[in-house]
Amino acid sequence: MSKAKSPKLIPLSPVPLYNQLKEILRGQILDGTWPPLSRMPSENELGQRFDVSRITVRQALNDLQKEGLIFKIHGKGTFVAKPKAFQNVSTLQGLAESLGRQGYEVINRLISFKTVAASSQVAQRLKIKEGSPVSEIKRLRLVNREPVSLEVTWLPLDIGQQLEKADLVTRDIFLILENDCGYNLGHAELAIDAILAESELTRLLKIEEGSPIMRIERLTHTDDGTPIDYEYLYYRGDAFQYRLRIDRHRTDSGEKS
Amino acid sequence: MSKAKSPKLIPLSPVPLYNQLKEILRGQILDGTWPPLSRMPSENELGQRFDVSRITVRQALNDLQKEGLIFKIHGKGTFVAKPKAFQNVSTLQGLAESLGRQGYEVINRLISFKTVAASSQVAQRLKIKEGSPVSEIKRLRLVNREPVSLEVTWLPLDIGQQLEKADLVTRDIFLILENDCGYNLGHAELAIDAILAESELTRLLKIEEGSPIMRIERLTHTDDGTPIDYEYLYYRGDAFQYRLRIDRHRTDSGEKS
Repeated sequence: MSKAKSPKLIPLSPVPLYNQLKEILRGQILDGTWPPLSRMPSENELGQRFDVSRITVRQALNDLQKEGLIFKIHGKGTFVAKPKAFQNVSTLQGLAESLGRQGYEVINRLISFKTVAASSQVAQRLKIKEGSPVSEIKRLRLVNREPVSLEVTWLPLDIGQQLEKADLVTRDIFLILENDCGYNLGHAELAIDAILAESELTRLLKIEEGSPIMRIERLTHTDDGTPIDYEYLYYRGDAFQYRLRIDRHRTDSGEKS
Repeated sequence: MSKAKSPKLIPLSPVPLYNQLKEILRGQILDGTWPPLSRMPSENELGQRFDVSRITVRQALNDLQKEGLIFKIHGKGTFVAKPKAFQNVSTLQGLAESLGRQGYEVINRLISFKTVAASSQVAQRLKIKEGSPVSEIKRLRLVNREPVSLEVTWLPLDIGQQLEKADLVTRDIFLILENDCGYNLGHAELAIDAILAESELTRLLKIEEGSPIMRIERLTHTDDGTPIDYEYLYYRGDAFQYRLRIDRHRTDSGEKS
């Protein structure tokens, strides 16, 4: 590995030393000085190179780890994380449909497919009666063989039953709904927030408890406005990113109000 | 407070008891049985009511806390979180512009406004030379007096200088750019992911280290496509949500490929 440039820290700056070091290391990770999956220098080496204490180095590395730029392997050292996979969500697409274009392999592991009583929330979204039967599908989605998201999908029972014979391992539900079942999808409403991984996510996504999760609540409609597919998508924060383009003024007629 | 309905858990179900309990409590929080800021029953009370062990109760509550639905105050008990504020990002708007319409008060605290050397990342996004001077603005944004996000903005120096006299406490930068400086904003590119709060965010947003953060990287362009405003927005995961509508087929001409 080529020796990294070592810009100097400014001891008398109002910006704390660990913050200066963090910015320098972040820049070097993003510009490829430290390539993905390479091992970072040890705390001692970094301390010597930048002439700061080990505590300062540790705080900078700690912050970069929280940001998902580096990860630690016990007894092996600190490594640079791979760039996050991203999905462009400027149009409504399934994960395989979107990532497949970028050359990623998307495979799903079916965790469960069952009929459950609609909770009040599911019932309200799908405009059915609370407690009436709906299909619930839980899938783990693997990008290049690594678990990236858990997706929980609720469908009206008659639609769910049409999916029972479908290939849920390699195909997006959107494409099955359109191509096999003949529904035309229209728009989806999304809510995006950040939560921490709890027990089930920890286990399935192979991450530590308390890891960051990007959570998407998504309600998809047919083109006549009927809600057809309600989901919670849980993405590993360290592995995935949504990208989109937003216009200052909408030029289409999609948005009401 | 009215006594909550207590649906029964199913001991022989393949779904673990804590998971069943979690789903019931989540439903009761979302349907208003337990209103925002109300105190939840103690672990003992819940254990008795649902005939499960205290460990089961604790795991269910632990998961709901990770999801941001409840929070604990040491020595006082467990409380229901307020519903998250949300911003509709189907069109490009500043926080005050968007939340003001919903009746929220948005006030900003200016943390710093300075001239810095453009990092390679900032330089690349703003299409300027690395190391050349740019304006860096750090603002804490308070919704109804509570800190909700930290926003770090980089602007080309000549534009930053025009903002030095502007009212950054009550106004969005977007509106200042448009109304005071005469720029027409066009579109923005966003990347959304989830990270954990590190030292600075912990301090400014008044949250615990390791709390979930929804992070937005946003590059805003004028209507002729010139990048003008590059930002990192850090939202408290427990307090904020992005909402948007996505169409299966774009009907406008905004998106290239």
